[in-house]
Amino acid sequence: MSFPSRVEICDVGPRDGFQFEEQFIPTDRKVETITALADAGVPRIQVTSFVHPEWVPQMKDAETVCERLPARDDVTYAGLALNQKGLERAHAAGLSQVDLSIATHDTHSRANANMTVDEAVVQAEDMIRHAHNHGLDVQMGFQTVFGYNEPGDTPLTQVVEMSRHFAEMGVESISLADSTGLANPRMIQECAEAVLEAIGNVPLVLHLHDTRGLGLANVYAALQCGVNRFDTSLAGMGGCPFIEGATGNIATEDTVYLLDGLNIDTGIGRAAVGKAARRIENELGKQFPGKLHRL
Amino acid sequence: MSFPSRVEICDVGPRDGFQFEEQFIPTDRKVETITALADAGVPRIQVTSFVHPEWVPQMKDAETVCERLPARDDVTYAGLALNQKGLERAHAAGLSQVDLSIATHDTHSRANANMTVDEAVVQAEDMIRHAHNHGLDVQMGFQTVFGYNEPGDTPLTQVVEMSRHFAEMGVESISLADSTGLANPRMIQECAEAVLEAIGNVPLVLHLHDTRGLGLANVYAALQCGVNRFDTSLAGMGGCPFIEGATGNIATEDTVYLLDGLNIDTGIGRAAVGKAARRIENELGKQFPGKLHRL
Repeated sequence: MSFPSRVEICDVGPRDGFQFEEQFIPTDRKVETITALADAGVPRIQVTSFVHPEWVPQMKDAETVCERLPARDDVTYAGLALNQKGLERAHAAGLSQVDLSIATHDTHSRANANMTVDEAVVQAEDMIRHAHNHGLDVQMGFQTVFGYNEPGDTPLTQVVEMSRHFAEMGVESISLADSTGLANPRMIQECAEAVLEAIGNVPLVLHLHDTRGLGLANVYAALQCGVNRFDTSLAGMGGCPFIEGATGNIATEDTVYLLDGLNIDTGIGRAAVGKAARRIENELGKQFPGKLHRL
Repeated sequence: MSFPSRVEICDVGPRDGFQFEEQFIPTDRKVETITALADAGVPRIQVTSFVHPEWVPQMKDAETVCERLPARDDVTYAGLALNQKGLERAHAAGLSQVDLSIATHDTHSRANANMTVDEAVVQAEDMIRHAHNHGLDVQMGFQTVFGYNEPGDTPLTQVVEMSRHFAEMGVESISLADSTGLANPRMIQECAEAVLEAIGNVPLVLHLHDTRGLGLANVYAALQCGVNRFDTSLAGMGGCPFIEGATGNIATEDTVYLLDGLNIDTGIGRAAVGKAARRIENELGKQFPGKLHRL
């Protein structure tokens, strides 16, 4: 069995985790969490999203968070943008990478973004051209790639063609999200093999949720296909936008335990991540589903 | 990637799960849970343990549970016994299979059973001879196979030799337990390959815990080696005997979701297991770590 010798983790907790918290988390706590992740050796952090504060009040301090990011050459800070306005805000905030994200299922796209997938693709193309004109890297993300209502109800051919299309536009990376946690290792393998072949040298990122407990089994299957970038979330913060109370992203510290066990380098210190996980749990007064940090 | 076409699940919740519950669960509830599992298609159920009621008061009704098991040709009911007295009780209670379990690490063996591993092996040999003389099948189990204090602090060669030895004694199966949840897929693969080679046609059972979130990743790695029997626990009940508050066994319903996704037959209906999981949660007034049954 051969695996990548190194894996790059992006911690999306400060965005995908915090956005599920109803109570506003003070900007200080957000910056503290991001700083702790950077200090623990996490090389990529999705720090916020530039969405309308009425939709996601938790992210109303996006600009302030960016202003206060610790200056580090060894960490890539990214922000999520869902439209042109968000993209401009991300650029103005001084980020070097913007993450775009569109649906792959028309029902989902209409419900969530009030447009078809085709319309979302056109909008994303415009955003990418604009970003590239301003020297911003773009990670192009697709949602519910492994199923929206049922496993596999997004056709794999469509995911492959969308990935190929955006890879040809010169994006920094392609991200496939199992937003609903419906994926299983067989689907991961089929999809990763097909998309890796389609996108050539453009890096593939998997954004996996642990909704049904298969998160790290899916990571293991992806590693066997050569995937070497994953989104994770400190303490397993986050949720499923369609399922109340469901578990969120795979936990950073548990994922690092898996990778350490496979002798795959991440540059991340498990103890430091665990400490940050316990701290955010104490601060928010709740227990997240990540496991390692509680032992 | 080739997998077994069929996997046999043994639900150990009524023993390994219930024993961690401080409040006594009425015998009615226990029998109801076992019946629900049998009705859901679970082919093997570890229904109780025959240990001294002062040590594990939760299991003081072992005989009564066995008396009231639904009569079914398609389900194997097993009970755990840790000494000759327990074995005799299991036999008198009418069970056709008894599960033995010994430590593989001397420190653990002395702390838990007040004897060395060598002494425990001799005692188990005597018990197996006695069981076979009375027509009982024996599953021989080893604890903390993947680590007691640290991953891998039980030498693999010792596990392999112990497995070979008991396989030669004609036990029904060999069970390897990751009691501490320290295993990772690399260790699972190394161990499963070596033990499978040593025990020939004797079935290998893996008893995995999800202490660090790697439970189903470890199942996936084991399937790739051809392992086709696993212990699971309804709703992920259970814990780690050495770590307070730690997650327990891999959840039956989540494991079946994984296996269904890989087109591996278990004969188990996920919806029926989910219903049983929700019922036991309601009855005990708590939430277990299994995920699928909450969706």
